[in-house]
Amino acid sequence: MKHNYLDNIPLEEAKEKFFTLAKKDFTHKTEEISTTEAVGRVLSGAVYAKICCPHYNASAMDGIAVKAKDTYSASESTPVILTADMYTVVDTGDAIPDDKDAVIMVEDLSFENNGRVKIIASVHPFQNVRQIGEDICMGDMIAPSFTVVTPSLCGAMLAGGIIKATVIEKPVVAIIPTGDEIVSPTDNPKRGEIIEFNSSIFSGMLKSWDADTVVYPIIPDKKDMIKLSVKEAAEKYDAVLVLAGSSAGRDDYTCDIIKELGEVCVHGIAIKPGKPAVLGKIGSTPVVGLPGYPVSAIVVMREIVRDLIAFLSHKTVKAENKITAVLGKRIIFSLKYREYVRVTIGKIGEIYVAVPLPRGAGIVTSFTKADGIIVVPQNSEGIEQGEAVDVILVNPCKDIENSIIMTGSHDPIIDEINDLLKIKGYPYSVSSSHVGSMGALSAVKLGQAHLGGIHLLDTETGRYNDSYVEKYLDADTATHVKGIGRIQGLMVEKGNPKNIKGFADIVDHRYVNRQLGSGTRILFDYLLKTNGIDKNEIDGYRNEEFTHTAVAAQIAGGNADCGLGIYSAAQMYGLDFIELSVEEYDFIVNNDFINTPMYNAFMEVFRSDELKERMKEMGGYTLG
Amino acid sequence: MKHNYLDNIPLEEAKEKFFTLAKKDFTHKTEEISTTEAVGRVLSGAVYAKICCPHYNASAMDGIAVKAKDTYSASESTPVILTADMYTVVDTGDAIPDDKDAVIMVEDLSFENNGRVKIIASVHPFQNVRQIGEDICMGDMIAPSFTVVTPSLCGAMLAGGIIKATVIEKPVVAIIPTGDEIVSPTDNPKRGEIIEFNSSIFSGMLKSWDADTVVYPIIPDKKDMIKLSVKEAAEKYDAVLVLAGSSAGRDDYTCDIIKELGEVCVHGIAIKPGKPAVLGKIGSTPVVGLPGYPVSAIVVMREIVRDLIAFLSHKTVKAENKITAVLGKRIIFSLKYREYVRVTIGKIGEIYVAVPLPRGAGIVTSFTKADGIIVVPQNSEGIEQGEAVDVILVNPCKDIENSIIMTGSHDPIIDEINDLLKIKGYPYSVSSSHVGSMGALSAVKLGQAHLGGIHLLDTETGRYNDSYVEKYLDADTATHVKGIGRIQGLMVEKGNPKNIKGFADIVDHRYVNRQLGSGTRILFDYLLKTNGIDKNEIDGYRNEEFTHTAVAAQIAGGNADCGLGIYSAAQMYGLDFIELSVEEYDFIVNNDFINTPMYNAFMEVFRSDELKERMKEMGGYTLG
Repeated sequence: MKHNYLDNIPLEEAKEKFFTLAKKDFTHKTEEISTTEAVGRVLSGAVYAKICCPHYNASAMDGIAVKAKDTYSASESTPVILTADMYTVVDTGDAIPDDKDAVIMVEDLSFENNGRVKIIASVHPFQNVRQIGEDICMGDMIAPSFTVVTPSLCGAMLAGGIIKATVIEKPVVAIIPTGDEIVSPTDNPKRGEIIEFNSSIFSGMLKSWDADTVVYPIIPDKKDMIKLSVKEAAEKYDAVLVLAGSSAGRDDYTCDIIKELGEVCVHGIAIKPGKPAVLGKIGSTPVVGLPGYPVSAIVVMREIVRDLIAFLSHKTVKAENKITAVLGKRIIFSLKYREYVRVTIGKIGEIYVAVPLPRGAGIVTSFTKADGIIVVPQNSEGIEQGEAVDVILVNPCKDIENSIIMTGSHDPIIDEINDLLKIKGYPYSVSSSHVGSMGALSAVKLGQAHLGGIHLLDTETGRYNDSYVEKYLDADTATHVKGIGRIQGLMVEKGNPKNIKGFADIVDHRYVNRQLGSGTRILFDYLLKTNGIDKNEIDGYRNEEFTHTAVAAQIAGGNADCGLGIYSAAQMYGLDFIELSVEEYDFIVNNDFINTPMYNAFMEVFRSDELKERMKEMGGYTLG
Repeated sequence: MKHNYLDNIPLEEAKEKFFTLAKKDFTHKTEEISTTEAVGRVLSGAVYAKICCPHYNASAMDGIAVKAKDTYSASESTPVILTADMYTVVDTGDAIPDDKDAVIMVEDLSFENNGRVKIIASVHPFQNVRQIGEDICMGDMIAPSFTVVTPSLCGAMLAGGIIKATVIEKPVVAIIPTGDEIVSPTDNPKRGEIIEFNSSIFSGMLKSWDADTVVYPIIPDKKDMIKLSVKEAAEKYDAVLVLAGSSAGRDDYTCDIIKELGEVCVHGIAIKPGKPAVLGKIGSTPVVGLPGYPVSAIVVMREIVRDLIAFLSHKTVKAENKITAVLGKRIIFSLKYREYVRVTIGKIGEIYVAVPLPRGAGIVTSFTKADGIIVVPQNSEGIEQGEAVDVILVNPCKDIENSIIMTGSHDPIIDEINDLLKIKGYPYSVSSSHVGSMGALSAVKLGQAHLGGIHLLDTETGRYNDSYVEKYLDADTATHVKGIGRIQGLMVEKGNPKNIKGFADIVDHRYVNRQLGSGTRILFDYLLKTNGIDKNEIDGYRNEEFTHTAVAAQIAGGNADCGLGIYSAAQMYGLDFIELSVEEYDFIVNNDFINTPMYNAFMEVFRSDELKERMKEMGGYTLG
């Protein structure tokens, strides 16, 4: 097994090297297109008007064209009568006859017999006339070189007689997915097969940056085959992205291939995720080797490929909006990389709170859910909870002001409430993170969430939630709102092949646990105690998951034999379910949030018949 | 001649009426498409994962899969040797064999003879393994209803086994241009012909809002023909825009046609520009009659049609960015309308300054040049110079921070400097307004422009600029920078058919003047005085234009026989030119701007050989 090490070049230096290489001997290609098709394109040179607009003296009104001096004596007390030979009826836009020089609007006319018209006010020369060149004069520069054609500029160019525009060619980017294990999108992949979705993500990003894309068929990890495609793509297209194989492992060929066909200037960048990227050039075509992990590759796309497309298009990259937010959860870093932390953002009272999402390079949903990114410089050890951070806003569709920040215990009904808010036409959305019931108490207390979901068993009294709320929250800060009843139980494989009959049987089997601080974990530890079982007897006690469905997935996938969770998760995965107890899942609500329109909408949906219907379908809920 | 009056309904009320009508009995159409094509589309329902991602336990590293418990005793002092039967070589993404549960990364391995591997650290179960469902669990809601598919959401859906997506159909909007005088884009329109560019502007806007468009051929002002097209379009497409004919004049049929085929709910909105709009519905299709003046129609597009497209697409309209700026020029309003004032914006020191652009409804370049819009409520009488105003930013491509605000006297070389800045790769642009030399002095003095262009003749000394700068600006505020020499003279028709030999001859002919405060006007008044001519003898003394090219255009178009201006303007229009004097065109520069990178770039270009080359080509300049 070979293993080579990568460089760890700071991003700025990597970009400097790459763009110096890319710009060397590079000429932008141009094409002539119809101006009517030019919106969004970049002019390759300055555009000068060929004609004036208007190009003749035009009436600015519906009315009559007159000689201004025929009207000078008109007033309310001394009206002037114009005979038919002294005026011409004109509509807006009509040419003013050569012997006339002003227009009286129709509202100011009294028509009399024999085509005579009475007027009671004078007009001066060129009044109500759009004079030649009022908007654009022939010879005026309508736009300088490299202007992006907006819709109104397109109109101005046409008005100035420019019917063809010479523009920079749109870059076409080839995307080459590689990998033995990669398969085209399917809903039934075999074990070991990875669905190829990166090319769709990158196509979408490239199109949003106004590039066209060509996606190659998936190529297996055969160096010669990949090399052939990269060579062809570099000859035919304006840039090439090779997906996966960018690191230095056994089957990683991207770097060697670019070296053999052209030049590599960077292999390994000091960013995380995104380190194992390759930057180079074949002929005059920039080539980027992207890491296989989607989040790594998205970071490289945002930090490097976006600038590359801007360079190829002769555009500038518009800075993204930033806000300052308070960090909702401590994060620590390795010192070796600039890190990109995806966060959700909510506005709690007047303060923006940024909550970090899972940081794994393979967690594509961390980008799907992200409202923003915190860029942490190399050599930072960490950021404490409560510190102010700059957040780059990455989702232009997301309305952060209307985002309900819900945290704590995971229950699928929160997602259903989010969906019903949309269906009922509310502008609000629920942004939920799963930090367990104890996490909810702390987040709501610190003003880092609008509300939380809790199901906390008091192991002394056997009652739910009340004692915790009393202990951790004061009534000025938060309000306890009763929620729903949920059936908790043991999820076991379909048909219960291990014949697990009750809680005591779990000691003989592989268990999958929930994380510390979750209500389900507290229940589990309580059940261990009441059943007299030592946690060290449990095979898998330290195997922790964050949601009910994740526990169900481990059992359905054969990683474990049993786990504690709610009925609806078991049903979703076709698992058998051994009922153990009914727990109370309640809300704790930040008092500043209570009675806001967002809160009222959330509660309206929570109490709606539509949600009850859905809960009935999911099963395992009792409605209070 | 008939004339009907329009309503004057406040915008909110007009929209309320229109959207109530549009939403009545309306159902969104949906279609199923490949998820790989879904970026930018709107999901018509919630999407739940069909499979887990990963859907099997996958290696997170290149390395070897092992049983964790085989490694527990490994440490630097007590290495463990694994024999070939105790591990499986895995690459990132490979499935972990059923009898293994952890991965040791390749960097931590020492390969020995006979396939034996030495390890010096233990791994715990599932270490370096991407467990089933780490990213997405089957059954989890990936996105709620009506989510716009981002590139990463597209990836998450594919990862969750969603290969088809049901989305809201993209609205298709029919655009029907009408008018006898309207012709397709040409560079050689006849007198009375108006180039049809509105449909290109609106197509561009609609596409930027993610609607598709169908542009009909131009239909003359024949009611039956227009009606036929409107009827067909309302049946085939999701919305119809009828261009022009929306007012109440002789040839305005839009309102009647919509009434006859369906229902009109609004005719006339209290906005300026944009008043004569018609809003209605035919069958289930919303129909909008847009005013013929481009700026009026753009306002109606932005204020009403954008919301309509959002409704048809089931999207929300994202609020545009706003800034607070200081108004650079007093504006007054009629009390009857909400007004939309287009402005350029620059950052002078730390303050944003908004300078109003021409307000005419026909001036499409007022939108082309606009960086922002000030929305002035009905019943406002005016806004004073220096007042703070909210400005909506309308040009996402424009980088206001890099905008050089140049004001004062008009000279085409300013546009050439702007172009050369782009060509030389600077991020800066020049935003110039033509307020004459005296306007430049006041704007620079008040900190409302970075720099100004002046050519002011001291009629006592016969010298240019110095005495004005001394009188109006103090050295702490601004610096006087020497510019260029320009040849001023009389522009007359080609071949000089009126036989104008010198300045004294102008009394017998139609003159076109420049506006008060312009250097050319000061020169003209000085020449009148020195030639002993009374201004009342001048036919056209009050006929004022704002630029040299506008004066040339009036002469070339036959509106006047002569006018004072610079040689390059005469040459551009093929006019004869009678040289009168060489004037000094200088810059006055706000001291805060001096020596900034923007200023240095401007001056570098001003002094460049490229600009000298262009000035030589234009003619009429002397280089100091």
